[in-house]
Order: sequence, then structure tokens, then C-alpha cells
Amino acid sequence: MHTDAVKWTSSGAVYLLDQTLLPDETAYLEVDTIDAMVEAIRALRVRGAPLIGVAASMGIAAAANRMAVDGSLPGEKTAALSWLESACDTMARARPTAVNLAWAVNRLRSAVVERLSTVNDDDTAEVMVRTLRREAQRMWDEDAAMCSAMATAGAVLLPAASSVMTHCNTGMLATGGIGTALGVIRMAHEQGRVKEVYACEARPLRQGSRLTAWELARLDIPCTVVVDSAAATVMAQGRVNAVILGADRIAANGDVANKIGTQNLAIIAKEYGIPFYVAAPTSTFDLDAASGVAIPIEERPADEVATAEGVKVYNPAFDVTPAHLISGIITDRGVIEPPYGESIRRLFD
Amino acid sequence: MHTDAVKWTSSGAVYLLDQTLLPDETAYLEVDTIDAMVEAIRALRVRGAPLIGVAASMGIAAAANRMAVDGSLPGEKTAALSWLESACDTMARARPTAVNLAWAVNRLRSAVVERLSTVNDDDTAEVMVRTLRREAQRMWDEDAAMCSAMATAGAVLLPAASSVMTHCNTGMLATGGIGTALGVIRMAHEQGRVKEVYACEARPLRQGSRLTAWELARLDIPCTVVVDSAAATVMAQGRVNAVILGADRIAANGDVANKIGTQNLAIIAKEYGIPFYVAAPTSTFDLDAASGVAIPIEERPADEVATAEGVKVYNPAFDVTPAHLISGIITDRGVIEPPYGESIRRLFD
Repeated sequence: MHTDAVKWTSSGAVYLLDQTLLPDETAYLEVDTIDAMVEAIRALRVRGAPLIGVAASMGIAAAANRMAVDGSLPGEKTAALSWLESACDTMARARPTAVNLAWAVNRLRSAVVERLSTVNDDDTAEVMVRTLRREAQRMWDEDAAMCSAMATAGAVLLPAASSVMTHCNTGMLATGGIGTALGVIRMAHEQGRVKEVYACEARPLRQGSRLTAWELARLDIPCTVVVDSAAATVMAQGRVNAVILGADRIAANGDVANKIGTQNLAIIAKEYGIPFYVAAPTSTFDLDAASGVAIPIEERPADEVATAEGVKVYNPAFDVTPAHLISGIITDRGVIEPPYGESIRRLFD
Repeated sequence: MHTDAVKWTSSGAVYLLDQTLLPDETAYLEVDTIDAMVEAIRALRVRGAPLIGVAASMGIAAAANRMAVDGSLPGEKTAALSWLESACDTMARARPTAVNLAWAVNRLRSAVVERLSTVNDDDTAEVMVRTLRREAQRMWDEDAAMCSAMATAGAVLLPAASSVMTHCNTGMLATGGIGTALGVIRMAHEQGRVKEVYACEARPLRQGSRLTAWELARLDIPCTVVVDSAAATVMAQGRVNAVILGADRIAANGDVANKIGTQNLAIIAKEYGIPFYVAAPTSTFDLDAASGVAIPIEERPADEVATAEGVKVYNPAFDVTPAHLISGIITDRGVIEPPYGESIRRLFD
């Protein structure tokens, strides 16, 4: 069964499935302010690189809509754009690693600036609200389409009746569509190419055992959860034919920032000669980052990892997998292969 | 501050520090039956390969003592030995992977059989109780001495002001002394060779973040906890000079069974050229196991890893690290190096 992680309410607010409560509870929360959306993104109520871009855009549209209704959205063009500028900046700073967030709000801002350039002050508020809503919806629709395109491009990489390992969550809870890596897996399962999935737990916040397992159960795709530390055992025992997971940012040389533990899996997969695939839409590439070194890595609060009193915790939420460990990157424009510097350049030509 | 994980009570029972409650609560439980000790070992109230050998032996001694006091220990020699035989078998089956458990109860049984061979029926109960207690105490003392010997042999491997990574718990909570790997780290810290420790969490039961962090805090050794998935990040950033951890069973060819995740760390350490050491007393070697393939791997209950309803969990508690990934094995008889087939043979010559 498909579940939307975000929805519009009839009044133009955003309904968010609160992912921190899954799999025990399915509860939506209504968001129509910038602050509430920033809180939801920071607290990982909504998460997944592509989805936070979509959700942030929808949040800005919902906030503008509410303000227009209660009369607090500036009618004068310069003031309205100044509000939008500030809203976009605040949203973009909510989380640092996934480039899709900055990419989405920049696109949203540009769309409004362009549209407003030909509009009188009288129409500013109305046109801004309409443009924000339309552009946010467009990004959502495009993200869904990119998911389908990735699934089509990636599924054929997997031999019949494969068993695959994945990490974190990259499905309908992480995107506006069927998912990145999990979308590939879903389509490959429909084609008889995937018979089972090993989902790594993904400590500390357990997006694998909580979210991916929940999604796969709803889709009737056989899933076995393992702790992250069991990866070498599972691979050494020949239980998986491929590893496939998502990305939060891909540098121009093919280095991939993704959920902490991705780098572990890539190294272990290499040791056992298992293909290691990354699935990500073109909105995840950051050509301004020459390599992984340029990607900011979010450190999350220490209390996500409980320990004894007075003991320090180092809690990076992401790691950077060097390009040389990656067998292929599945994008909405096809699968690219090493050398990535070149294949990524061609992707954006 | 040193803490004993096991103690004798004045009445001859065993006091166990219930490690499932750490670090939040420090509570001892009194054990004087076979069933209670088996439950404590299975539930990991007492754990660590060397310590469960000692604790099982103390448990058998405590049970015999209680039975002698209440008159239920058979006075007739054949019946007494039959009780012991059954007690030892039950205890040995409590957990399958750590060979120290079987090693300890076999030694306990042999000591009693030998001692009773020259004793009349009249004295059987008293001599059995005394022999069990003495032999259990001897194994405890020897284990403490082996810890010290390992620490002396291993500390010198670490360069001054090293930062080391460890996994699971191998300290005073896992042995009858200062520990295996953590004993080495403790002595190396006293010698200025270790300045800080990265403790991996060790999911699912978090012996790293709960127990190792607690021990290191008590010993005033700087400790930083990371999730198991952060190992590659920490190593890639050059934060650690060596990995050092324990073992539950070492095969004749040097393959090492240890806490799940050890194999991950060994592969990642190799990728970054970081020395990977195992510390274990000679009681951990199993020369009957030609290689890791012969080592039984305990699968723990699925509910240790929470997930969505209807989703399977594969939860092996240990993995097997191939000998070729191990830089050196620190034993109470010195440090051995590859080729292990040969160096292990010489160790037991």
C-alpha cells in the first residue's frame, strides 16, 4: 500500500506523517508556519534528502497562504520578496548535508522572483501564493517522476531473484514518489528481480528497522532486519547479491554523502566483491563540491546515543563514501559509472 | 575505581552485578542455584567470555554448597558425581560461542573427579564443595593474572599518546581481572600510551556505550562513544591509531569469533591501514576448531532488535573475523603474529 509522507490539506496547509512515531503510530501533523516546518525537518518528523526539499517548499507555500488569508503577507512587492528571502534562508539552514533542501528553496525563490517581475503590487500576494504552491507541487511531481525513472533505470541492474541489502530509508517516506534506492528495489521486486531485502537498522535513529521495514511490510516485500554490525556476516555468508542505497549529496567527483554507515557498507561490499549502487535524483548532485571534503556533515545531538554519565558522544549523521567504492550511480537520467568526474559532467551537459 | 563483577557472599553464594541494568543502576543479585546462574548467563546479567567461565564455576560451587547445607547434595560418590555431571552440562549449554564456558566447567569437573577418587563416601559432600570452591577461585585468580599478563604484553604495542578504538566490553565486567583488550588499554593509559578511547556502541545490547563507557568513566580514561556505523568515518579521519578488542573463541588457524561487528571493524581497519589487535587469554583458544567455520554462532532473540510488525530479524550475536585481517593476538603468554596456524601451535607446545 502506498502512503504519502506529505499532503496538502484542503485549506492549503501541509499534512506531515510524523516519522518519529513510526512504526508504532501513524499520525499526521498540520504545518503552516516556517518555524513549524523547520522544527519538523530538524526533528526528523519529515526526512529523506528528496522529501525535505519538497516538504520545505510546501511549507513555505503553506506559510505564505496562511499569511495571505490572515492579511499578514506583505502586499508590497519588495517587502513580500524580503519575507520570501528570509523564509528560504531559514528553511535552507534547517539541515546542512542534503543538498536537495538548498536546491529546492533556491528554485522556489527563483520561480517567484521571475513571476513577480511582471506583476503589480496589487496582485503580489495572490500571485506569490499561487506561484509558491504551483512550484512546490511541480517539484513534488517531478520528484515522483524522477523516482520512477530511477526505478526503471536501476531495476535491470539486479539479476533475477536477487537478495539486496539497503541502509537507512529511501522509499515513499523519503521522497515524493516510490523512493530512490527503495523505489528501484520495489520495481525490481515487481519484475521478479528482488526476492528479499536485508535492511540495516541505521543507528542511532533506526530509519532502517523502523521505516524501511514498515514500508516493505506494507508492500509485501520480504524483509529481514539486521543490526548495522551484522553487515560483514551477511555479506560473507553470501546472503546478498548487491547493496543499494540513497544519497544526501553527491560531489562532482562521485563522492557520496549519505547516512552514517554507508561508508562501512561500501568497504565491506568491496571486500566481498558485492556490487555497491547509489540511487539519487539529479537534484542530489552538487557540482560546486569538487569532492566529498567540501560536503558539510551534520553532527546530531549527543543524546541520540545514550551512554554513561560524563562520557562524550561523537554523532555524525552522515559519512562520505569515496567514489572508487561505488559500482554505479542510478539517476533519473540513467545509470552512470566510473570515472565519475566525466560521467557526472556528461549528466549535466 | 575497580569493581568486581562477581563476588562470594559470606554464606558461599555468588553475588553478581546485574549488567543489564548498567549504567543507570548498580545492583547485585545473589545466586546459589544452577538454574539461576544459567538464567543470569543467558540474559547477559553476567557476560564476557572469560567471566562467564568463572561465574559458571562459582555458580556450581555455590549450588553444591547450598545443597550441602540443606542436606540435598548426595553423600554417595556416584550420585554426587552424577549431580555434578548434570550441573556442568547444563551450565556449558547456557551459551554456545564462548569456549571459556565449556573449558571452565570441564576443568572444574576434572578437578573434582580427581580429588574424589581418593575419598570415602562419608567425606564426599564436604570434599566436593571444598574442591569446587577452591577450583572456581583458582580459575578466577588465574583469569585475573592472565589479564595482567595480557596487559603487560599488549600495552607496549601502542605508540605514545595513541587513540584506540574498541568494541563491546572486555574489561573488569567481562573478566575476573582488569580485562582483556580493556586491560591492555588500561595499562597503556597508565603508561601514557593511550590518551583516548573510541568505544563502539555494540548494538543490539550496547555493551560498548553502556558498559565500556561506564568502566572508562570510572577509570578516568577519556572515552568517546560512537555508533557502530561511524567506524569508517572515525578511521578515515585518522582519529584512531589502533583497534583492539576481545574474543569469544579463537580457532586453531587464528580465525576469531567475537561480538557481532568485529568483522566489520577488521575489514575497515585494513582499508585504512590501521593495526587490528585481538586480546584473549589462552582459555579462549579452541584447538579442536580447525577454522572459524567450526565455531557455533549464537543467534539471539529477535526482540533484541525492535522493528515493524511482521518483519523478520536475523540477530547473530557474534561474527568470525578471518585470521588474515588480524595484526596480532595478545595472549597471557605473549603476542602472537601471523602465520597463526604455526604461532598458535607453538603457544600450546
